Amino acid sequence: MSKQVKNAAGRFVPIEINGEKQVPYKGVGKYKPEGKKFAPKIPTNANFPTNGNKQVPTIKEALIKAGLKDGMTISSHHHFRNGDLIMNQVFDIAKEMGVKNLRWFPSASFPCHEHLIKYLEDGTIQRIEGSMNGPLGKFTSQGKMKGTAILRSHGGRYQAVQDGEVKIDIAIIAAGTADQFGNANGVTGASASGLLGFALADSQYADKVIVITDNMVPFPCVPWQIQGNFVDYTVKVDKAGNPDKIISGTTKITKSPDRLLLAEMTANFCEATGIIKNGFSFQTGAGGTSLAVSKYFGDIMREKNIKARFARGGSNEFLVKMLEEGLIEYILDGQTFDLEGVRSMRENPNHTWTSPFTSYNYHSKGNFAAMVDVVILGATEVDINFNGNVVTHSDGLLMHGIGGWQNCLFSKTVILPIPLFRNRIPVIVDEVTTIVGPGELIDVIVTERGIAINPLRKDLIEASKNSGLPIKTIQQLKEEAEKICGIAQKPDFTDEIIAAIKWVDGTVIDVVRKLKKKK
Amino acid sequence: MSKQVKNAAGRFVPIEINGEKQVPYKGVGKYKPEGKKFAPKIPTNANFPTNGNKQVPTIKEALIKAGLKDGMTISSHHHFRNGDLIMNQVFDIAKEMGVKNLRWFPSASFPCHEHLIKYLEDGTIQRIEGSMNGPLGKFTSQGKMKGTAILRSHGGRYQAVQDGEVKIDIAIIAAGTADQFGNANGVTGASASGLLGFALADSQYADKVIVITDNMVPFPCVPWQIQGNFVDYTVKVDKAGNPDKIISGTTKITKSPDRLLLAEMTANFCEATGIIKNGFSFQTGAGGTSLAVSKYFGDIMREKNIKARFARGGSNEFLVKMLEEGLIEYILDGQTFDLEGVRSMRENPNHTWTSPFTSYNYHSKGNFAAMVDVVILGATEVDINFNGNVVTHSDGLLMHGIGGWQNCLFSKTVILPIPLFRNRIPVIVDEVTTIVGPGELIDVIVTERGIAINPLRKDLIEASKNSGLPIKTIQQLKEEAEKICGIAQKPDFTDEIIAAIKWVDGTVIDVVRKLKKKK
Repeated sequence: MSKQVKNAAGRFVPIEINGEKQVPYKGVGKYKPEGKKFAPKIPTNANFPTNGNKQVPTIKEALIKAGLKDGMTISSHHHFRNGDLIMNQVFDIAKEMGVKNLRWFPSASFPCHEHLIKYLEDGTIQRIEGSMNGPLGKFTSQGKMKGTAILRSHGGRYQAVQDGEVKIDIAIIAAGTADQFGNANGVTGASASGLLGFALADSQYADKVIVITDNMVPFPCVPWQIQGNFVDYTVKVDKAGNPDKIISGTTKITKSPDRLLLAEMTANFCEATGIIKNGFSFQTGAGGTSLAVSKYFGDIMREKNIKARFARGGSNEFLVKMLEEGLIEYILDGQTFDLEGVRSMRENPNHTWTSPFTSYNYHSKGNFAAMVDVVILGATEVDINFNGNVVTHSDGLLMHGIGGWQNCLFSKTVILPIPLFRNRIPVIVDEVTTIVGPGELIDVIVTERGIAINPLRKDLIEASKNSGLPIKTIQQLKEEAEKICGIAQKPDFTDEIIAAIKWVDGTVIDVVRKLKKKK
Repeated sequence: MSKQVKNAAGRFVPIEINGEKQVPYKGVGKYKPEGKKFAPKIPTNANFPTNGNKQVPTIKEALIKAGLKDGMTISSHHHFRNGDLIMNQVFDIAKEMGVKNLRWFPSASFPCHEHLIKYLEDGTIQRIEGSMNGPLGKFTSQGKMKGTAILRSHGGRYQAVQDGEVKIDIAIIAAGTADQFGNANGVTGASASGLLGFALADSQYADKVIVITDNMVPFPCVPWQIQGNFVDYTVKVDKAGNPDKIISGTTKITKSPDRLLLAEMTANFCEATGIIKNGFSFQTGAGGTSLAVSKYFGDIMREKNIKARFARGGSNEFLVKMLEEGLIEYILDGQTFDLEGVRSMRENPNHTWTSPFTSYNYHSKGNFAAMVDVVILGATEVDINFNGNVVTHSDGLLMHGIGGWQNCLFSKTVILPIPLFRNRIPVIVDEVTTIVGPGELIDVIVTERGIAINPLRKDLIEASKNSGLPIKTIQQLKEEAEKICGIAQKPDFTDEIIAAIKWVDGTVIDVVRKLKKKK
């Protein structure tokens, strides 16, 4: 096992993972990259069909032409979320071809990819670098993956590809519509998933790029969210993905009265502290509670005749309604969370697509996330120093991806509406199981029994003083939870590292260790 | 002077220009690049304002912050064409600061830049690499520029930047609308020039990027044709450009009955040979005759109820009308040639913006130009081997840029409607003064006295056999012209090379030499 050092978050992290050198987390804005962006090989039109037709008959043929072989890195995007139909096929083909030791580099994986566990077991896939929601996360937590998983935020994934930390050999891009040249989008066709931004870095930097669609239109496919000039092969299949399943996991608005209360308190806090004002901007992320916040924001804005300059998606029916009502001037969207989002993006030029490059890449000349006035996010745990965790549960299981969560922490005000406890396990703890976001970037914790404001945000403490809202310290909230549930038991880890958590700048902020087997 | 070698076009070209090694032209599709794309330094958000506001008070302050100093390369785009108001100011500032020896790398320069001749004389500017229309071209032809000019096509300019042949230190991007973060577009605002595609490579690869606008809107500037994530500084000025002057030089439809005849013959040829058919595509370029062709195409299409899948811009009122009428499904536009083009691009999602990357870059995985069925272009000269010239006149003066001309030669059929003579000087000659495009890519020459088809295009010769059109050989056309005007006199050049003409792949296809002084 590699040597470990204590990073600026106080966590011990290895200086080498999967045989590659790592930089330990140095603090927010402290690590300054000195290198150059990854430089792909210069292609030439002379090596591509003069009529622009890059279509090959099958995914298998595309993979063979792309030179699929042992040890390669295969990337994919997750705009279909749990409705992805392609990646299981891709690895079935790899298995059939006897290819081994692949690195899968998805922007996220979902329960639909449980099929791949057998390939992780038999060595077809050596490791996954990307969010693992559900069964693959559990498999990894049990120490069963051959390599070490690496989890990155959406922006961190773009950064890693741009900076050459992850070199993609073959990028797979499933698209609602494409032309034979490779121009592709996610807004039209029967398998429209909204947009294709998560595949942007892949298209720009991968050695070979394969676009797969069930709706092959004559050139030009307009709009092109992926540019065919980056694409090597195109394939037509019967079904590129199942868009009905983009509503999955974390994208349904909550019906729980407790969670609705959290959402309402959050909105009230934003109203009381003057965050909701003409020309403001907000992002409410995924997660049932966060989604409900946009509904309450709408109520306040209607009542007070307030208009937002923009809202950041993940878009959903509530945001779309607000856009169409004129409460929001623009939706800047990175991911549609329901089919109303897809429709609106297709029809409304003010429902604008963004990408992890524009929104979240920390290694660029600024990004959009920093310009959002208030962002509402979820968390599995928060600690008394306001550090946040979104990847592991208090039981230590790696069950969620980072998504855009880390990137959104750069917003002007970050609010986490979270229940004080889940299944009688306190959510506010002394120390989070996994540090995914540093406390200095997390401003407000809203629970059903009170709101804690980060002491760094004196302005918010002042602004909320006479609001009548139940402002408490985070210690008070923790103690209240512990009075009811007792102190949370720490998960029982071995020393073995099963996953590394990257910060937005590519440094290692924490690791996840293998769980001890229950006796 | 550098050693010279004979290239595959039969021209003697130097192996070094301005101290930089050159690859002589090797033939169409023969040169295969082996290197990697240019890798810019990795930036970090940590070095940029957290609120996204990159605005500085003046152009001068932006240039100082960007580190303007001797020997740098300053780039600019020409979407305002003869209405550019910024670059003269930029070099006034450079002069005032005592900076010397700059390379100006515009996508094109126009008569409005005559102001810069004094800086070429006093050494503020060492050389121009970019199209020089008018006075700057004449100045160069007289051998007065200190360095050697390099002319590239629009695609070749993207290629040169992408491949690191030209490293831009400071990119200047004048925009109709921008936000303080640097997102910018050319479709809105009082100084809307259409789009900003010519500045795309500059934004992506330059070390420092400055966006200048007279319409600074709150974030987000939608649409963003230039992404603020690439931008270092933004500046608000009183006037960013004069959009009335985008109609200049080559963008007015001809009123000459001779030219209208050429346009009509061209359209008739396309009709007779079956090029105009349902789902076809065309590009009519700039130049009065070419523009008139789109009008005649429209007449034929209306009459025969034919619809085009797409037309490539430069857009103009005729194309826009055809789009709105439903004769064309999409305009894929790289440059608006009049204000109707700007309006349509702003309002109509099927009037789609392209860039030199998508349309013309030869060092990518294909490009759009190759997928166009027929392209109508101009030329100053054509020779009996169908080689074309667009940069020099028969008098040897360097007076025009290449524009997208070379890139468009990759279209399926290339037609040049040209008068048999201009000012009693034959246009069809034994050997063009400057080879800008190789004859193997030029298919048809339409003159008022007959149409010559490249012998390589047996299909077109066959298809036009019984058309009743005056099909002749190119030799016949040349002889007819010479009977009337006599043989064209060759320009009287010295040995001194004043400009190099790059092919689409960065190789040197020809050079322009200094003219002897007239006695």
